[in-house]
Amino acid sequence: MVYREELIGKLMITQKRARNGLRQSLEELPGSLIRHVAEPNMGREGLIKLWFGEPDVPTPQFIKDAAVSALDQDQVFYAKNRGVPALREVIAEYATKLHGANIDIGRITVSGSGMNAIMMISEALMSAGDNMVVVGPVWPNCKETVRIMDAEPRQVALKLGDDGRWSLDIEKLFAACDERTQAVFINSPGNPTGWVMPREEQQAVLVECRKRGIWLISDEVYIRLAYESDLPLGRAPSFLDIADPEDRVIVINSFSKSWSMTGWRLGWITHPMDTGQGFEKLVEYNIANPTTFVQYAGVTAIEQGEPFIAQTLNRYRQNRDIVVQRLSAMRRVKLSHPEGAFYAFFAVDGMSDSVAFAQKLIDEVGVGLAPGLAFSQDGEGWMRLCFAADTQTVSAAMDRLQSILG
Amino acid sequence: MVYREELIGKLMITQKRARNGLRQSLEELPGSLIRHVAEPNMGREGLIKLWFGEPDVPTPQFIKDAAVSALDQDQVFYAKNRGVPALREVIAEYATKLHGANIDIGRITVSGSGMNAIMMISEALMSAGDNMVVVGPVWPNCKETVRIMDAEPRQVALKLGDDGRWSLDIEKLFAACDERTQAVFINSPGNPTGWVMPREEQQAVLVECRKRGIWLISDEVYIRLAYESDLPLGRAPSFLDIADPEDRVIVINSFSKSWSMTGWRLGWITHPMDTGQGFEKLVEYNIANPTTFVQYAGVTAIEQGEPFIAQTLNRYRQNRDIVVQRLSAMRRVKLSHPEGAFYAFFAVDGMSDSVAFAQKLIDEVGVGLAPGLAFSQDGEGWMRLCFAADTQTVSAAMDRLQSILG
Repeated sequence: MVYREELIGKLMITQKRARNGLRQSLEELPGSLIRHVAEPNMGREGLIKLWFGEPDVPTPQFIKDAAVSALDQDQVFYAKNRGVPALREVIAEYATKLHGANIDIGRITVSGSGMNAIMMISEALMSAGDNMVVVGPVWPNCKETVRIMDAEPRQVALKLGDDGRWSLDIEKLFAACDERTQAVFINSPGNPTGWVMPREEQQAVLVECRKRGIWLISDEVYIRLAYESDLPLGRAPSFLDIADPEDRVIVINSFSKSWSMTGWRLGWITHPMDTGQGFEKLVEYNIANPTTFVQYAGVTAIEQGEPFIAQTLNRYRQNRDIVVQRLSAMRRVKLSHPEGAFYAFFAVDGMSDSVAFAQKLIDEVGVGLAPGLAFSQDGEGWMRLCFAADTQTVSAAMDRLQSILG
Repeated sequence: MVYREELIGKLMITQKRARNGLRQSLEELPGSLIRHVAEPNMGREGLIKLWFGEPDVPTPQFIKDAAVSALDQDQVFYAKNRGVPALREVIAEYATKLHGANIDIGRITVSGSGMNAIMMISEALMSAGDNMVVVGPVWPNCKETVRIMDAEPRQVALKLGDDGRWSLDIEKLFAACDERTQAVFINSPGNPTGWVMPREEQQAVLVECRKRGIWLISDEVYIRLAYESDLPLGRAPSFLDIADPEDRVIVINSFSKSWSMTGWRLGWITHPMDTGQGFEKLVEYNIANPTTFVQYAGVTAIEQGEPFIAQTLNRYRQNRDIVVQRLSAMRRVKLSHPEGAFYAFFAVDGMSDSVAFAQKLIDEVGVGLAPGLAFSQDGEGWMRLCFAADTQTVSAAMDRLQSILG
């Protein structure tokens, strides 16, 4: 073993540069294939756009009012790195109630979105040559943050059963780990899969991570969007339900999906108490603090948002039922059953270029979907449809897709 | 030469871990010494607080109104990574007018603050073992972003002349560069120094950076706060005045200081056209986009903010004159002449522990200042006072300091 600190300075290691002078590794980062499909087609008349992972309804008025009220009160100055105390308190209370486990405020750090949280977690854990093992198909951004740190993302694919449900091969997951594996990354409810990881599997992964001293990163931004749950508040199982406070577990959450606040850029992480100072520094050096008055809107969102969340879940469930019913009946479609989140993810018989097929659907039937390839090679041959839309719109999209997929 | 890509995987390089499981290099990052002094003393009755670098007045009403109006228009969804087109256009026009040089919109990327811009620049340029040479004393955060990338910040100190003005030894600056130097980082007008880099020195540094193929990073967040300028709009010289569009120059700007928008988290960078895609990815993987409705407030800030900027500059100039006059007359003070920004930076005769001295000033005369050590070892023995405050408050602080420094 050679420690990297000793290595630097002893060897001449030169990184490659792209022609534009930026790091070559940055140049090699893939851009978003969803945007690649969406942006040139954005202005098309009459197109039904179900490509992005975003609720169709704007932020509820009471949350916007809270932001205006915070502006009136001149909450426009720098704030504490880890979040304004009022928001951290409310989040800790919310989490404690949600998980039935005491979540200390010292374990909460507010971030400028779930995305920003994922980047900071990579900075906290990844050095050049390390790796993170990711359960996929998955929203690719978690992997790109690892690449930015010159570390390696490894993907282990979920398996689709004959019943249309995903399952994780835990042995395979840990077979992909080695002594440079710093973290396992799991997103449940999953984007794009709709997979909801069962409690027993969470338990097994937690035990193995403990044993190996590997961090467990759980992206739970869709936790409030579970359609078949018997847990209180109808939410998905969480690692916070079962982990000890000192476990090497970091859970990512966000205001984007459940509170319809995508453009606000507000999220939070729950982490072991003794990493609070580390994340405090990372917030300071990444964004200093999330927008101050936006944080006060976050307080109100949590305090008054439950009826909106319940109503949204019902609406999405209705859409999900339509989508499942309609897509399942289409001849060329193999649909994975969406247990959570707000996506239908399906394979198309005879299709092997999802980017071209996305364009074909736009051109021929006027429906914009995300190509499966955007979620890694494992997703090629698949398409993702976001059903966080108006029910009529979702039905209309089904009618249109019928002609090509039916 | 061994390329790092070849090295990874061939050698067993293991990074050290802190006890809490985070990267050891993160653990070793210093926290902010300004916050170290300020936070335990924050609630003190009657204390005059001039420790943070923040305007005392809240954001002007017309900018807050623009945010409210954008909220009313439901600008609450995801936006393009590099900023909403309306904001990028307005910034490009503003920059073109300010610099008398055509700044193409393709060179503008909006960021979630100047801090966020600096982090992304480090991600764009720094790999493990690289280095960045920084002109100091300087706000330390630029160096910490380099450390997060496992690269090395090197500092070259400005020299204080007998006339109280700082000067840069350009030979010394480039003597600190080697084949692993990816960038030179310059902050003018400077925090904490008040230094304004003259046009001829900018020219000389630019020429040498070109010759060596080193990136030039210019932090110009205080550009509109120059007190002795004969340039149009009374601003400081900028590298954008003299650089070619394709030069490896990145200029950082922010809405925080000139528009009193510290808590809003909005800034931008100007970069070569061919790095736009690289920064687009970095925004995607760091924050996705700055808060959407905040960006529309930024449009209004630029379009209607000039009277506010002029008025603010006059107010700060008045404060500066008081501070210069009063501090210069104090027996124990050696004051550097603040040509720009909003800080008085001064050495105190017989003082060698600025953190302890900051506490002494709080305890004995009720004035909160930032310790010079916060700006690196070069700043030890010095104190920083932010004069972006009410004129009466600044005068009162001078009366109080007189008793210890006079």
